[in-house]
Amino acid sequence: MDETSQSRHAVHAYVDSAEQRDWERFGALLAEDVVYEMPQTRERIRGKSAFLQFNMEYPGDWHLRVRRVVADGRHAAAWIDARVGTGHQDACVWFEISDQGLISRIVDYWPEPYDPPSGREHLVERW
Amino acid sequence: MDETSQSRHAVHAYVDSAEQRDWERFGALLAEDVVYEMPQTRERIRGKSAFLQFNMEYPGDWHLRVRRVVADGRHAAAWIDARVGTGHQDACVWFEISDQGLISRIVDYWPEPYDPPSGREHLVERW
Repeated sequence: MDETSQSRHAVHAYVDSAEQRDWERFGALLAEDVVYEMPQTRERIRGKSAFLQFNMEYPGDWHLRVRRVVADGRHAAAWIDARVGTGHQDACVWFEISDQGLISRIVDYWPEPYDPPSGREHLVERW
Repeated sequence: MDETSQSRHAVHAYVDSAEQRDWERFGALLAEDVVYEMPQTRERIRGKSAFLQFNMEYPGDWHLRVRRVVADGRHAAAWIDARVGTGHQDACVWFEISDQGLISRIVDYWPEPYDPPSGREHLVERW
């Protein structure tokens, strides 16, 4: 398996094992010194153990589904459909993969809805 | 140039030509029927002409810099550092590339900062 295929496979397995709450499989995808960052809240988690705990403790009956995975060498990005109850949010996640094929860095964005600024109504349609 | 290289090249050229306000080069990267979506505001722009106008009219002295591009066949994603004056925001942009190598679909997210929820202070550091 080449680097790109390995990265693509790791990201699909990351989403799928989290959705399954298969924490053994999830943990096996992560480098020991994995770093997880959420730039919107300026939060960082260091190490597999803390990051596993963060996911295991994450509140709510959340569900994840891959909208798209793009892999390129040791980099990948995932566009994820996340649902909690009737709520829905997309996530954009950036991955770095180690030379052992393990996920070593994750940068996670959770864009929230907002009202469009005025001045571009002549160009856009709303849904 | 293979599909992945073509997609990677198109996305770099998209950011660079927008930053340069080189609208002729920017427009040459786009399919005539390009569709541009901003899911956070549920806005959609159809067609090269309207999308060019949207970019040309976009207010502020904005500047774009690629943080990362991930290309994979006819899909790509760009993680962009956007600045207006002293303000800074990251963007996550998803691309589809036509079989002619033109950008045919763009989905653009602009995640905004927010306060972290409580309950995970034992796992995270702030920056």
